[in-house]
Amino acid sequence: MGINLANFLSSKSKSTKMIEFQDLEHMDGLSISTVSANLYKDNRDDLVLFYFRDGANHASVYTKSKIVSENIKWNLNQKNKKVFSLLVNTRNANAFTGKQGYQSLEKIANMISQQLTEKQKKDEDDPKKINSNQVIFGCTGTIGEVFPEDKIINQIPNLINKIKYTQNKFIWMKAALGIMTTDTKPKLVMEDCKIGNKKVKIYGIAKGSGMIHPNMATTLAYIFTDASLSNNLLKKLLIKNISTTFNAISCDGDTSTNDMVSIFSTEKVQNPFIQNIHDIKLKSFDISLNKVLLNLAKRIVSDGEGASKFITINVANCKTEIDGKKIAFSIANSPLVKTAIAGEDPNWGRILMAIGKAGPAINLKKLSIKFGNIIIVKDGKIHQSYDENKVANYMKNEKIDLNISISTGLKHFTAYTMDLTKKYIEINADYRS
Amino acid sequence: MGINLANFLSSKSKSTKMIEFQDLEHMDGLSISTVSANLYKDNRDDLVLFYFRDGANHASVYTKSKIVSENIKWNLNQKNKKVFSLLVNTRNANAFTGKQGYQSLEKIANMISQQLTEKQKKDEDDPKKINSNQVIFGCTGTIGEVFPEDKIINQIPNLINKIKYTQNKFIWMKAALGIMTTDTKPKLVMEDCKIGNKKVKIYGIAKGSGMIHPNMATTLAYIFTDASLSNNLLKKLLIKNISTTFNAISCDGDTSTNDMVSIFSTEKVQNPFIQNIHDIKLKSFDISLNKVLLNLAKRIVSDGEGASKFITINVANCKTEIDGKKIAFSIANSPLVKTAIAGEDPNWGRILMAIGKAGPAINLKKLSIKFGNIIIVKDGKIHQSYDENKVANYMKNEKIDLNISISTGLKHFTAYTMDLTKKYIEINADYRS
Repeated sequence: MGINLANFLSSKSKSTKMIEFQDLEHMDGLSISTVSANLYKDNRDDLVLFYFRDGANHASVYTKSKIVSENIKWNLNQKNKKVFSLLVNTRNANAFTGKQGYQSLEKIANMISQQLTEKQKKDEDDPKKINSNQVIFGCTGTIGEVFPEDKIINQIPNLINKIKYTQNKFIWMKAALGIMTTDTKPKLVMEDCKIGNKKVKIYGIAKGSGMIHPNMATTLAYIFTDASLSNNLLKKLLIKNISTTFNAISCDGDTSTNDMVSIFSTEKVQNPFIQNIHDIKLKSFDISLNKVLLNLAKRIVSDGEGASKFITINVANCKTEIDGKKIAFSIANSPLVKTAIAGEDPNWGRILMAIGKAGPAINLKKLSIKFGNIIIVKDGKIHQSYDENKVANYMKNEKIDLNISISTGLKHFTAYTMDLTKKYIEINADYRS
Repeated sequence: MGINLANFLSSKSKSTKMIEFQDLEHMDGLSISTVSANLYKDNRDDLVLFYFRDGANHASVYTKSKIVSENIKWNLNQKNKKVFSLLVNTRNANAFTGKQGYQSLEKIANMISQQLTEKQKKDEDDPKKINSNQVIFGCTGTIGEVFPEDKIINQIPNLINKIKYTQNKFIWMKAALGIMTTDTKPKLVMEDCKIGNKKVKIYGIAKGSGMIHPNMATTLAYIFTDASLSNNLLKKLLIKNISTTFNAISCDGDTSTNDMVSIFSTEKVQNPFIQNIHDIKLKSFDISLNKVLLNLAKRIVSDGEGASKFITINVANCKTEIDGKKIAFSIANSPLVKTAIAGEDPNWGRILMAIGKAGPAINLKKLSIKFGNIIIVKDGKIHQSYDENKVANYMKNEKIDLNISISTGLKHFTAYTMDLTKKYIEINADYRS
């Protein structure tokens, strides 16, 4: 399971670092600690605390599901400008847990804020009082089970004890491992960039869409920067860049109750003040943030359950980006397309089917389909050079590019997905047997 | 592959006949003949001709795909009030075949109409001249391959020679077998009913959504009645009843270029003239037509690729039927739900996930979920009687009913689907290997 990431990243983009894991180092203003509350009963780390000693500006986007977990409700209710802590737990999604689940978070937030306030008194020249509404939560795991309040509360002193003010690659790796559920690989990404002439860092970790009964597919991604950027700007940057990254991936078309992508800025770098997202000084940061998000999103897809191939679907020359997205996802979510690719079968007819059912009007006479650089359909006709053996050979690659041109306009959209294999069914159907 | 139909039909509805195949008999005004044009190179019947010696009123609904096959384009271009013939071929979908595909149909329609006109001269007291625009087509099979015009044309004399004026159960079975692609069972259904005090018959055959490279999922269903009903009324009846039958099933959420459901009335029974679809005299026909369509649709689902379980999803107490449909299909098309059911895993969390992502607003406090009659969630809480072993036992059934109540209104929708098994992947991915 899982695709060789180095492999597909190397052929994708020169700017993306061609290594399996990036080493994330120290980031000013951020501390991480991890412990095991033994939620999985195997002593793996299952609680990860992020602590911002001077607070952090922040923004989050959440699942669009109409049924959301208690931690998302909690987070949405806290309106504080700065957060001081993010606690992530695995094994229990705190979804469909009702009052108990919400009240547990209240207790935990109270306890964390009290103990961090104590810590401030000991460690800081200018100690701050931290409030419970400055603590937010990420949860992933089983839904509908009682939230393990006591087990988590018991570990809070431990979590806070372990806080260090210098981070290294090992603690980042522990954090990335600590938020995993059924992922087979931790996901860590970093980019350096500039705001004005000031160097800033963007670090990110994520967990993917692995789901084994009775867990749900949950995407969690946490981005950290030492730049100084307002909540408002962070929100705009996140929303802008999520649409072509986390909202451009599909593993099985399902959406969890817990999906959460957040960005935090510790404001330790005194970069020029930026008010407007279109400010030219923000360009390098904007591009790098997109890279971090896209790289994490791709790692989630390539670690998708049972994935044997990474599929990039480029839909070009559409009337609107929404048209492109509809067509790209119609292909990305089609079990027929995904099984054909798993079987290394160059079944362009199924792609045509998925284009046709997507919704947007198609001018068949101008449609073109390429597998990689191999032209299959051009101007609505099977291309004269079409050679099934050549395409069948292409299908053996681990990374498949489907390039579609609709010729109804100038917009485009790119989606990322994986194939649908017997392994997926095994993981999702046979887990109990 | 395939579910024991008798089994699930018997528990579903007392009015649905509890037999594997119904014997369809003679229908006045309709003749059927089948031949092999050797399109599959194994001499199976692959051409089925339906001939209406006095013409038939008719109505059809077609795929909503933006890319449609040449036969659908042909059918939509023929505006004649009566049709005299429907020719169905398998093995080649006549989709993405361009001018050649369309012109082939033109030639074939010319030839059929000429030869049927000759036949009329021989056999009828009042011979009619049949025009090529009184011939329509159903096609299913490979897309993008040259349409086998010559092979089909060569068999037309043979097809017409074999026409008999009395039909029996054997010719109906041959017709149902002749339109199959990867279906494992022929699908034939009948109902008797009345219009006013006149007895009329409704017969139907269908083929399902089997798809093996490079075929597409194509649903074809043909309904025949000896009643006297206008084109306009047939169209209204078809549109009304399709929404709760053929448009309520999902095998894998994919849509073909060729889907087609048609109804033909031979007008051999002189029933009272009906102008309005709400005419009380039409009620029995309306109900019986729904039964025929629903029964055929269910047979398609239960013969869906790799299906081991038949799933009925009832979404009740919705604000609108559209809300109910969105939620039902969100569940029906969720790979996570479908794999859980394949694994006999009572994973209600995944159902909750699918309800949440469907779109319509949910009042969690009033949500209820039952597996069959077993209450899982009531008023937004896990029910006190919830016993996982009991539910796990229920999941062993071949027929699974998911009963959901949203409590936002009074409307409901029922969808039908099957589970997602390794067999599905084998059929769709590994066919070539």
